[in-house]
Amino acid sequence: MNIDMIRAAADRLKGHARHTPLLSAPALDAIAGRRVLVKAECLQHTGSFKFRGGRAAMSALDSDQLSAGVIAFSSGNHAQGVALAARDFGAPCVIVMPSDAPTVKIANTRALGAEVVLYDRARDDRDAIGADLADDRGLTLIKPFDDPQVIAGQGTAGLEIAADAGALGVAQAEVLVCCGGGGLTSGIALALEADAPDMIVRPVEPEGFDDVARSLATGAIQTNNRRDGSLCDAIITPRPGDLTFPIMQRLCGAGLVVSEQDAQRAMVAAFNHLRIVLEPGGAVALAAALYHPDTTQTDTVIAVATGGNVDPALFAQTLRDFT
Amino acid sequence: MNIDMIRAAADRLKGHARHTPLLSAPALDAIAGRRVLVKAECLQHTGSFKFRGGRAAMSALDSDQLSAGVIAFSSGNHAQGVALAARDFGAPCVIVMPSDAPTVKIANTRALGAEVVLYDRARDDRDAIGADLADDRGLTLIKPFDDPQVIAGQGTAGLEIAADAGALGVAQAEVLVCCGGGGLTSGIALALEADAPDMIVRPVEPEGFDDVARSLATGAIQTNNRRDGSLCDAIITPRPGDLTFPIMQRLCGAGLVVSEQDAQRAMVAAFNHLRIVLEPGGAVALAAALYHPDTTQTDTVIAVATGGNVDPALFAQTLRDFT
Repeated sequence: MNIDMIRAAADRLKGHARHTPLLSAPALDAIAGRRVLVKAECLQHTGSFKFRGGRAAMSALDSDQLSAGVIAFSSGNHAQGVALAARDFGAPCVIVMPSDAPTVKIANTRALGAEVVLYDRARDDRDAIGADLADDRGLTLIKPFDDPQVIAGQGTAGLEIAADAGALGVAQAEVLVCCGGGGLTSGIALALEADAPDMIVRPVEPEGFDDVARSLATGAIQTNNRRDGSLCDAIITPRPGDLTFPIMQRLCGAGLVVSEQDAQRAMVAAFNHLRIVLEPGGAVALAAALYHPDTTQTDTVIAVATGGNVDPALFAQTLRDFT
Repeated sequence: MNIDMIRAAADRLKGHARHTPLLSAPALDAIAGRRVLVKAECLQHTGSFKFRGGRAAMSALDSDQLSAGVIAFSSGNHAQGVALAARDFGAPCVIVMPSDAPTVKIANTRALGAEVVLYDRARDDRDAIGADLADDRGLTLIKPFDDPQVIAGQGTAGLEIAADAGALGVAQAEVLVCCGGGGLTSGIALALEADAPDMIVRPVEPEGFDDVARSLATGAIQTNNRRDGSLCDAIITPRPGDLTFPIMQRLCGAGLVVSEQDAQRAMVAAFNHLRIVLEPGGAVALAAALYHPDTTQTDTVIAVATGGNVDPALFAQTLRDFT
């Protein structure tokens, strides 16, 4: 896992993944008391950075693998990212989702051409279902984060941050990244190590699901007690990955933790001042930049806004509750 | 008024105005039955294209004029665009606003450093107040649309459309533009005449405020009966401009008209599929692309999403009513 893999992924993604903008607003700078730049990955295809990793992994497959097809387990952003990438390659795509996933996510994934296989969370063994399907059809599994090509794909966002912040004259910054399993966080950290060595990545998580922060603090992989029940569902994972954690341990600063309420306040700030839509899990990094300015030191803070796939009713309620 | 003025404005705006992205989503293509590209000017500084024209006009002033200051009449997007541009130049800025303007717009304009002068719509003569202030202090008036440098500034969005659509292989398209006084519409039309001559601009207005469509249809400037009472307040003007109308007459196709409800449906579609925030007046072009596909002919339609400054309560209600 190295910078050359990230640069190679960037070459393969060129013209396919969107080079997302680095946004800013005077009002956000005023709240944070420093310059805030927001990497708007909610504007990426399928509404999150996940398309980068999905497409990077798939574009590293050979033509036999592509024509046999791919499989992924996800009810969320990874599902849509993989489904769109597979459609682009004309590769058959199976997404294994729990039968109680929101109908809109099932519909969105199907609309991208994927075959959705539902399982019963209580009764079925998800991994066994996936393994049987993969065996029967020769499908290649696209993991959500703990895979070198996926990390390389997510890392392309870091190359863009280094280039675009550099063009603004920003060389030194804390780069806050909404963190689940650590694929994006470790990928960006590797990219910045090479292209912006005076920047440091810090993972941001919601309260109660701070496995990465605790793992970094203790120097050993820690797990979350709870597995669900957070508005920030997009970044809830049981523990950091075996590949991602050593990278984060070597390169990242201490993890930050914010409340769900802070994430919702940041959603409203992004709505008002950047006119972008963020989901709660995609807003925790901006929340840390805006509402915990005492925990960062640099004159400029860069917050990665990782996704914007949010239920309209939740977004409407958030606007009402936090305006 | 010619293409050279637009290219000169683009040079002056470089590094200041944001080159906004051309977004797309498979789900929008499916609704429209053709390829839809969305020029996301809601991501421009201050949340609308108005910053382009305001800054272009100000950057054409000499240093004496800049140090004396500028004045504008607006309670909306033009106010914020001019205020931010003035702040960038260190120029004193007076914005004349009605005293019943939403407090948030007054506060936002003040937050950008402008002096806000309020007048009573019923009792005061707005133009007299402005003229007195301009005389006393030697302020330069920045008009909202009927000024060559303002048109040139807005036209820079057209240069970006030609370049970015060209990079996607799109040479022929109807370009739908949310239209008030016609500054953006005429500026984009001039830019495309030069850089993408197989594209044609079509202004889009809300029902009941279709002065431009009727003016184009009859070949003479028409006015609206009503002056307010539309959700699309950002693009409600009494009539097209004396400078903008002849340009539109020479270069634009027939105007399109959509309902407020269509605009609100388009706001929800942009929320769900592009993760951007649009105000009703900034969504009428996308509404025409999505919900009136029979009124356009080209394989690709480009919709300019002109602004995203919308009251959170209205946005929340729109999500509830149109999801």
